[in-house]
Amino acid sequence: MLILASQSASRKAMLAAAGVAFEARPALLDERAVEAGLGAAEPAEIALALAHAKALAIEADANLVLGSDSLVEVDGRRFDKPESRADATRHLQFFSGRTMHLHSAAALARDGRIVWSHADVARLRVRPLSDAFITWYLEQEWPAVAGSVGVFRIEALGPHLFEYIEGDYFTVLGMPLLPVLAALREAGELVA
Amino acid sequence: MLILASQSASRKAMLAAAGVAFEARPALLDERAVEAGLGAAEPAEIALALAHAKALAIEADANLVLGSDSLVEVDGRRFDKPESRADATRHLQFFSGRTMHLHSAAALARDGRIVWSHADVARLRVRPLSDAFITWYLEQEWPAVAGSVGVFRIEALGPHLFEYIEGDYFTVLGMPLLPVLAALREAGELVA
Repeated sequence: MLILASQSASRKAMLAAAGVAFEARPALLDERAVEAGLGAAEPAEIALALAHAKALAIEADANLVLGSDSLVEVDGRRFDKPESRADATRHLQFFSGRTMHLHSAAALARDGRIVWSHADVARLRVRPLSDAFITWYLEQEWPAVAGSVGVFRIEALGPHLFEYIEGDYFTVLGMPLLPVLAALREAGELVA
Repeated sequence: MLILASQSASRKAMLAAAGVAFEARPALLDERAVEAGLGAAEPAEIALALAHAKALAIEADANLVLGSDSLVEVDGRRFDKPESRADATRHLQFFSGRTMHLHSAAALARDGRIVWSHADVARLRVRPLSDAFITWYLEQEWPAVAGSVGVFRIEALGPHLFEYIEGDYFTVLGMPLLPVLAALREAGELVA
């Protein structure tokens, strides 16, 4: 049985929709400590390192463990999940008219060793957002977007933020699903 | 009020998820007759012509009418929705190891005139599919995929078919949502 080292609602929903059997267990991990150990690493490396660390943080004997991480970078600034509606407003005001780089990484571990990993990035062009729009948007989407580094749910009102999206949809949802399925198939966990 | 000239479940779900108010009315249209009138047109032109024809097929006074169409082309062959499970099996056997071009088009009409339209294409690389996989897949996805020109639901087991997807997710779902939202915003139908 695959172990998902995450309690992220979107990752659980993505795997469940694809018919993958799994058990979710939260990875107890000090993410900021992992990041601090990386110094001035690029966002893609940080996402990958966090996916690795999460996959390795679960004791699961011979079971495969799937770790995943997403982070957002806009004009060289990293953004974490918004901590309040005011914080979400500030993030959206910064994103307005800029290009969001959304990095998603995934890793598989078995017996305490990383056996596969993959990092991907999507580029999302944010249209100029008026303050009236941001207020309207957060009236409906707060606090549902509190768990999102990009302050959006692409499966809800998120599409209103963007002029265009370049990259994989599942990466945008928080995990590069197609490479994950390929790795699970390779590992004999899925019908090929 | 926007009129959606379609009873497609995925298009209705897409607009509803994005919080767009609309009323769905089926466009009574002989699609084959529209296509026959186009002669040897390219798939993108055919999708666009059908989106136009659907948007114009609804009497809606001054309301905006949204028409949309999708079609699939693989190695120069056009595919319509599978008519039976055996037909779905044959389509998947043909798609196996090939690249699917999924064309989606949308058009807005008002007062019997097209006021906006847009066509997009996504490329989906189908991995080599074993007969055992196709059987397993259709045991779960038939008849849910009977309405899909590509024989898949990307929001269900569809991801198992593909090595990679290049292009917009909403185009893959059957309608280029971001350009549609931009056009509705321009028309004053949405908070900008």
